[in-house]
Amino acid sequence: MRDSQLGIGVVGYGYWGPNIVRNFSINAATRVVGVSDLNPGRLGAVKQLYPGVETTRRYEDLLKDASIDAIAIATPVHTHYELALAALRAGKHVLVEKPLATSSELVTRLIEEADRRGLTLMVDHTFLYTPAVQRIRELLLSREIGDIYYYDSTRASLGLFQKDVNVIWDLAVHDISIIHHILDKDPIAVSATGSCHVVGSPENMAHITLFFADACVAHVSVNWLSPVKVRQTFIGGSRKMIVYDDLEPTEKIKVYDKGITLDGSPEDAHQFRIGYRAGDMWAPHISPTEALQTEVEHFVDCVRTGGQPISSGVSGLRVVEVLEAASCSIAKQGAPVLLREPHGIRQRARAIA
Amino acid sequence: MRDSQLGIGVVGYGYWGPNIVRNFSINAATRVVGVSDLNPGRLGAVKQLYPGVETTRRYEDLLKDASIDAIAIATPVHTHYELALAALRAGKHVLVEKPLATSSELVTRLIEEADRRGLTLMVDHTFLYTPAVQRIRELLLSREIGDIYYYDSTRASLGLFQKDVNVIWDLAVHDISIIHHILDKDPIAVSATGSCHVVGSPENMAHITLFFADACVAHVSVNWLSPVKVRQTFIGGSRKMIVYDDLEPTEKIKVYDKGITLDGSPEDAHQFRIGYRAGDMWAPHISPTEALQTEVEHFVDCVRTGGQPISSGVSGLRVVEVLEAASCSIAKQGAPVLLREPHGIRQRARAIA
Amino acid sequence: MRDSQLGIGVVGYGYWGPNIVRNFSINAATRVVGVSDLNPGRLGAVKQLYPGVETTRRYEDLLKDASIDAIAIATPVHTHYELALAALRAGKHVLVEKPLATSSELVTRLIEEADRRGLTLMVDHTFLYTPAVQRIRELLLSREIGDIYYYDSTRASLGLFQKDVNVIWDLAVHDISIIHHILDKDPIAVSATGSCHVVGSPENMAHITLFFADACVAHVSVNWLSPVKVRQTFIGGSRKMIVYDDLEPTEKIKVYDKGITLDGSPEDAHQFRIGYRAGDMWAPHISPTEALQTEVEHFVDCVRTGGQPISSGVSGLRVVEVLEAASCSIAKQGAPVLLREPHGIRQRARAIA
Amino acid sequence: MRDSQLGIGVVGYGYWGPNIVRNFSINAATRVVGVSDLNPGRLGAVKQLYPGVETTRRYEDLLKDASIDAIAIATPVHTHYELALAALRAGKHVLVEKPLATSSELVTRLIEEADRRGLTLMVDHTFLYTPAVQRIRELLLSREIGDIYYYDSTRASLGLFQKDVNVIWDLAVHDISIIHHILDKDPIAVSATGSCHVVGSPENMAHITLFFADACVAHVSVNWLSPVKVRQTFIGGSRKMIVYDDLEPTEKIKVYDKGITLDGSPEDAHQFRIGYRAGDMWAPHISPTEALQTEVEHFVDCVRTGGQPISSGVSGLRVVEVLEAASCSIAKQGAPVLLREPHGIRQRARAIA
Repeated sequence: MRDSQLGIGVVGYGYWGPNIVRNFSINAATRVVGVSDLNPGRLGAVKQLYPGVETTRRYEDLLKDASIDAIAIATPVHTHYELALAALRAGKHVLVEKPLATSSELVTRLIEEADRRGLTLMVDHTFLYTPAVQRIRELLLSREIGDIYYYDSTRASLGLFQKDVNVIWDLAVHDISIIHHILDKDPIAVSATGSCHVVGSPENMAHITLFFADACVAHVSVNWLSPVKVRQTFIGGSRKMIVYDDLEPTEKIKVYDKGITLDGSPEDAHQFRIGYRAGDMWAPHISPTEALQTEVEHFVDCVRTGGQPISSGVSGLRVVEVLEAASCSIAKQGAPVLLREPHGIRQRARAIA
Repeated sequence: MRDSQLGIGVVGYGYWGPNIVRNFSINAATRVVGVSDLNPGRLGAVKQLYPGVETTRRYEDLLKDASIDAIAIATPVHTHYELALAALRAGKHVLVEKPLATSSELVTRLIEEADRRGLTLMVDHTFLYTPAVQRIRELLLSREIGDIYYYDSTRASLGLFQKDVNVIWDLAVHDISIIHHILDKDPIAVSATGSCHVVGSPENMAHITLFFADACVAHVSVNWLSPVKVRQTFIGGSRKMIVYDDLEPTEKIKVYDKGITLDGSPEDAHQFRIGYRAGDMWAPHISPTEALQTEVEHFVDCVRTGGQPISSGVSGLRVVEVLEAASCSIAKQGAPVLLREPHGIRQRARAIA
Repeated sequence: MRDSQLGIGVVGYGYWGPNIVRNFSINAATRVVGVSDLNPGRLGAVKQLYPGVETTRRYEDLLKDASIDAIAIATPVHTHYELALAALRAGKHVLVEKPLATSSELVTRLIEEADRRGLTLMVDHTFLYTPAVQRIRELLLSREIGDIYYYDSTRASLGLFQKDVNVIWDLAVHDISIIHHILDKDPIAVSATGSCHVVGSPENMAHITLFFADACVAHVSVNWLSPVKVRQTFIGGSRKMIVYDDLEPTEKIKVYDKGITLDGSPEDAHQFRIGYRAGDMWAPHISPTEALQTEVEHFVDCVRTGGQPISSGVSGLRVVEVLEAASCSIAKQGAPVLLREPHGIRQRARAIA
Repeated sequence: MRDSQLGIGVVGYGYWGPNIVRNFSINAATRVVGVSDLNPGRLGAVKQLYPGVETTRRYEDLLKDASIDAIAIATPVHTHYELALAALRAGKHVLVEKPLATSSELVTRLIEEADRRGLTLMVDHTFLYTPAVQRIRELLLSREIGDIYYYDSTRASLGLFQKDVNVIWDLAVHDISIIHHILDKDPIAVSATGSCHVVGSPENMAHITLFFADACVAHVSVNWLSPVKVRQTFIGGSRKMIVYDDLEPTEKIKVYDKGITLDGSPEDAHQFRIGYRAGDMWAPHISPTEALQTEVEHFVDCVRTGGQPISSGVSGLRVVEVLEAASCSIAKQGAPVLLREPHGIRQRARAIA
């Protein structure tokens, strides 16, 4: 029976790695063969919990292991490209923690390598697999919310300061991936401001505005230096509005039947025309399924069928392009930076999908 | 005894006017002599509650009334300048709802008129008189928070869409005045983005970043189209951090003894140097005093002593200058707009104060 | 026009009196003629806000005033009976703050006096007039909640310690009146425990269980010595459950489509039969109307039509009977006290209604 | 090195068992040797996560295994006595999920058996090992709260209905153990009411009042049929008051510097004597340590040193005696039931401790 299981190697057992290992361990279709980490203490922790898993300080050992079909990478961002490329070249399917790599150029190379070899390349945009985000996407697709006016999100906590990327590459990446997933359209420009309160560190606080071709706008506020944890998103529509609070244990999504009404003829548009509608609130039941469990299942599916993951390399590319543009705008104190039209590799990927 | 009371005329009995009238009525040192409004129904409401107060549709009647010493103006923003100027010219002290006027130029003229006549000109930046903001200011002045890293505020609700000003002139004005009051320094540049979801209306949603000469940064998010009311401010410091939620009935201010610690020598600044400190939280008792009551007392004091109000015309000018710069940046999709150095009339006012 | 207005006299201008006066002042169908209070300072406060209202330290002055049609009594509980009786004997309709009087015997006498004279006797069970309680009653009547399993309420705050009644006569009275109103059935027995933490004062904390003839149970927890204010009620039904939090600014009522399901045949009742149903939550829009405004309108209606008030004397009697039984059970450390069957005067009242 | 580890056998891998296994697995001083459960599916789950652990459907296998030093029992309550007795007779130390057994008589026999054999008998009153309860105990011991007026707790959720015990044996048991631990005195009587909304099931909702020899009182409200989860405790003292909300992610304990003050001479005790003090609130930092981890360490310590556990058999006996008395009072609709004086085995245990 074991033969039919997908063999998994995990690189990195720091903050996120243990969740990866646990979820691949629970999944009946996969078997964690080995874990690599530079820190022997962490490898000891693996052995304590999973005596049957091989541990090594050399990730190359995982690449050489023929019983390993896929590699999950949960290491610092600046190592993603090199590790993912090596894994693809060793013929392994790859799941990479977000963001995919430190630049859109490197991401493009990974996509091309995976395409060339017919391997699955998936980025761990975990939130796309949460029941909450899936429900929001359904609500938007069903037109229950109406035209989307805005997405406005705050993601803040105390730490963890990253050394190799600033706060937008660490936290805003979640929102950018969610925005792409639920709105299903590309921003055309970005304005962002950021600030750094620890000399020599990357920006620890940032505010990003994404402009779209229509009146829709998205704003993302991220902060590593907040006294309390915040994970809150407001989505405003012409018919209803959503408040999504990921820290709520059960009522994560609240749908408000509230909004404005426009009265009067178009001629006297400036006279007495805005009314307010205050209706009921409704919190759909959200299943408590762990996102990573759903994601692991989806990864296995994609590996087996060759299907395009929801959080494919191309999806990861779009996110990284926005992060690059936002970083560029931060350097110019908020001056808008245009995003290029989706083209080339992305259009190809779309044609495939 | 009545002779020693300050006679008050109130122009405008719409949303805010009733609060003005009630607070001047409660105050033993003042007497509301008359109220003007264009709407007869509202004047009827005045008569029902305050049978002794004169009502009129013509505000000029108030200006001519010798028993009125001071005029409070609670009308739409675009009328502030004209009404305030007329009142000053009639020799009345003036309290104007925020913002003082629609441009820094008009505000400057009002300041000059009041200066010339030796009359009190005060702007109703109500939040400066709340026990909560006063307590925050004390905490900052006492250095308990340390160096201020950021002020990050969200002010959102459903409505009321203003017809003559956009959301920053209506809501962000509160935060701009608070920032000036508690940080006691001037921003040097502004980046702002805004969006409009009702054709023909001013912007109903905006995000503003204020840059200062040092690492301190302020961000204000305002929204007229939010499903729920939000009045939340985070203030980060090098020693402690504050969360101020104005909607909390009693624990409006929470002070967190949390933050980061910098370990290691300056040489290896990029290596393992950031630690986290998670300590106690403390919510100082905040008196439930109504801000407008304190403000009315302060206004009476200033009129009697000739002293400079906390929310003086000059203070209102600084706020309007930031609002102008933000509006300008919005038009340029976030490109930063520099604020000019305080000078001329403002320096004069400072010298006086 | 004034002649058609109902003339109102208010006895007592302490904690609740100002709300009474304000609401009768706002109501176009009523006119506050006079206010009596023993404290001259309070009478001064009346004059400051309502120059046209007569003030007096002798409530007898109000009884003699022919322009007064109805008397509202907002004084300490132990004075209710005497004041209400005098007002009825003077031919005035009467609205009395809760509870109606200090014993069911005295309440009965007031009911008889009012009946004899054909006057309206209404008790100020304010919560019955809140949009929230009205909505809950509708939900229960519509059978949307199913069979009612329980009503479990907590009503706590710091102060105000009453001198003449214990905490159940001050706070539990609200819940008892709500329970009667929304469940529309009478409890058959009461068990209550209480404790006193200030020597010489009445009980400041109590827990009351009301037993009904069926499986339904009600529990009320009240506390004058709580660090935070709590106004929370859980209502469990066979189909849905309600959480009613009166301190929530807008979402006061949340209806949960949750519960248990009973699977399996009755024979194996003890085997694997309970399932759980976790569905959506729904918060109906609740109008922000002030309860006292609705109550004043209802009082005027009853006076004019001779109709039976929702919070009639008889309704007040049922509440006082439960309070008496609870006090009796407290003295016996929780031993259950039976409630007598509704009879006599109450049945008569029902026949009328 | 493994030889020095304590070998652990776990009986029951249902709701709580996985937490037991995980915490003994993480602890470096213990090794989970085997797990027994009647359900093969659950044993499969053990094997998937812990390939090195033996699994069996016969708990006798664990008793015979010489490499097992201690048995942890996480099975339905009615099996505790038999399983624990068998384990003690097999010479194993025992950790039993709460409550220890279904009657004080059976608990006493277990205590005697463990005493006779010099084995550790510990009951899994998990909350005693939470950083929050430990902090509350410190606050009470330090006299910072003053005299304790009351402990008032609500513990509610939807499910899980137990088949063999009612809600007080399942949920109130937590509070009873906490009350004993932090107040360090015995109640003298109990009044309780309960109700059952599922025919043939034990009570699913109950309210318990514990009377003490002094003015202190404790109340515990428990409910299996609540739409939302509640874990909230109020502790009132003469100097300060505590609100402990176990569902708060970080600020679990809030200490309020609030209360009443008694003014005036004792003679006019009934006149104007109660004042209110509204001061600051303070939330001490609570470590996020998992209670079961601390508990497992404590269990290992007790086994090694022969020391008396904080949640010893005797501690478990006191809790069960209160549960018995409460059940008895429920049957009498709240009539108070006296608790016997601590004596015999308990006094002996105390003398030892």
